Amino acid sequence: MSARYLLPYAPDVIGGLPAGIDALVWDGEGPVPPDEALRGVEFFCLPYLRHAAALPLIGRLPSLKVVQTLTAGMDDVLPHVPAGVVARNAHGLHDASTAELAVTLALASLRGIPHFTRLQDQGRWNLEFHQSLADRTVLILGYGSIGRALAARLEPFECEVVKVARRARPEERVHGVRELPDLLPDADVVVLLTPLTPESRHLVDAGFLSRMKDGALLVNVARGPVVDTGALLAELSAGRLRAALDVTDPEPLPADHPLWHAPGVLITPHVGGPSSAFLPRAKRLLREQVLRFENGEPPAAGH
Amino acid sequence: MSARYLLPYAPDVIGGLPAGIDALVWDGEGPVPPDEALRGVEFFCLPYLRHAAALPLIGRLPSLKVVQTLTAGMDDVLPHVPAGVVARNAHGLHDASTAELAVTLALASLRGIPHFTRLQDQGRWNLEFHQSLADRTVLILGYGSIGRALAARLEPFECEVVKVARRARPEERVHGVRELPDLLPDADVVVLLTPLTPESRHLVDAGFLSRMKDGALLVNVARGPVVDTGALLAELSAGRLRAALDVTDPEPLPADHPLWHAPGVLITPHVGGPSSAFLPRAKRLLREQVLRFENGEPPAAGH
Repeated sequence: MSARYLLPYAPDVIGGLPAGIDALVWDGEGPVPPDEALRGVEFFCLPYLRHAAALPLIGRLPSLKVVQTLTAGMDDVLPHVPAGVVARNAHGLHDASTAELAVTLALASLRGIPHFTRLQDQGRWNLEFHQSLADRTVLILGYGSIGRALAARLEPFECEVVKVARRARPEERVHGVRELPDLLPDADVVVLLTPLTPESRHLVDAGFLSRMKDGALLVNVARGPVVDTGALLAELSAGRLRAALDVTDPEPLPADHPLWHAPGVLITPHVGGPSSAFLPRAKRLLREQVLRFENGEPPAAGH
Repeated sequence: MSARYLLPYAPDVIGGLPAGIDALVWDGEGPVPPDEALRGVEFFCLPYLRHAAALPLIGRLPSLKVVQTLTAGMDDVLPHVPAGVVARNAHGLHDASTAELAVTLALASLRGIPHFTRLQDQGRWNLEFHQSLADRTVLILGYGSIGRALAARLEPFECEVVKVARRARPEERVHGVRELPDLLPDADVVVLLTPLTPESRHLVDAGFLSRMKDGALLVNVARGPVVDTGALLAELSAGRLRAALDVTDPEPLPADHPLWHAPGVLITPHVGGPSSAFLPRAKRLLREQVLRFENGEPPAAGH
């Protein structure tokens, strides 16, 4: 009566799995399976973008061994994972989509796409010079798996890429976060990719922003609370900095929040991961992890 | 009383030129120098984006040997160049900026930036899945100098790039334009880079568009008349294709033109070249061409 796997997609949708694999499918929208059906679940993959519904389930799985997410961030999941249960994030799954959105936000902001969209709606053809990504210095803060995907995409654009992580990794030309105060004043674009941790919360505060050069662009595709929204609003309102934000604090941003209409800001509704790139890569990841679990191997590394 | 060069920037702005070079500066905005001052001009560089003012001058330069443009397209200039005068376009100058805008237009359209800009103006946070460039097939039509710069920028995005030029060049994996009918149905994004010639005028007509797949995106950073605007409007209005256009026909697009408000279209006002990438590269090109002319060498190749 009870299955070994609780998955958001049927095994034949995932593909490449042995016939007759013992899986229960729950997409996070339908009714939660009864406790009886969950008793034997050892491997639970949380449905993408349905964490709020899925998190209470973790505590109802007495046989649980592995919690797999389809998100890169685990900040909301980790507090719910019991001791002795292995938790794995979707390491690598969102690299393509999130790195691509970071490039999209940087290019769109620099080349004036939101501005030209508003002119288009008014039927106005105004030739204006905007900034090119070429010749700019782009600082990537939180240089890991997505950062490498981002750097690879940026490099052909004739820009300089500066990489910063918690700890310096000279073999990869990655600076440590302690060097940030010296590096920030030279960056035209700062892209945030750091996970949300107690140390990264409000890492981008008034002091951080004050070291950014006039007219520089802050791109956040990490987590909203990495940025102190009030401090950013002050810089935007003064017209000193620009921002392109796929994540905000609070999130979702309430309709009456002043950030929506701050000068020089572009806001997208947390769509770094959600794109057509998601499903094929999610299936690939799940296939790999389920096959490893079937073979008695530990799940492939996450963070 | 008469100078040898007529240039849009002063020699010390261009930099790297011999002291005392015999140049008159005209930026296309101030009054045209008197005939007397122009009598000895052998090398004329047209001011960028001021062709309309500059073209009549070409016929008033009796000593003219070289006409240099700062644009990639020469379609409007060539009819004014007398026999025996060498005309050179700004070969390579706009590669970075134009290839970058093509990527920007493709990414912005696919990932929904114009849509999210409009939602932002209404204070609306609506998570929606949009298309990623990853896993898409991008066909570049008019594969030359800018096309190579575009392909280099696209390749890290996990997309497939298909290259098409007038003639096939198997050593570069470039298809000939005759293969287009077979290639178009597989492309998710078609980027136009072809110069405007009698053969390329309305190359993108109703038949061309009908071979593009449902939901595909047409990106034009070439010249407006390469596309039959009426045929494109029909496909856009039917909701079958999308477009991102940096050039239009007519251009500038009149305020009451239906293209502005067609569904699924993003329009920018011919800013492929005009960006911060322009000036440093224009100076580099002019420096090289003036130094060659000073040394009695022919100007470096254009198209």
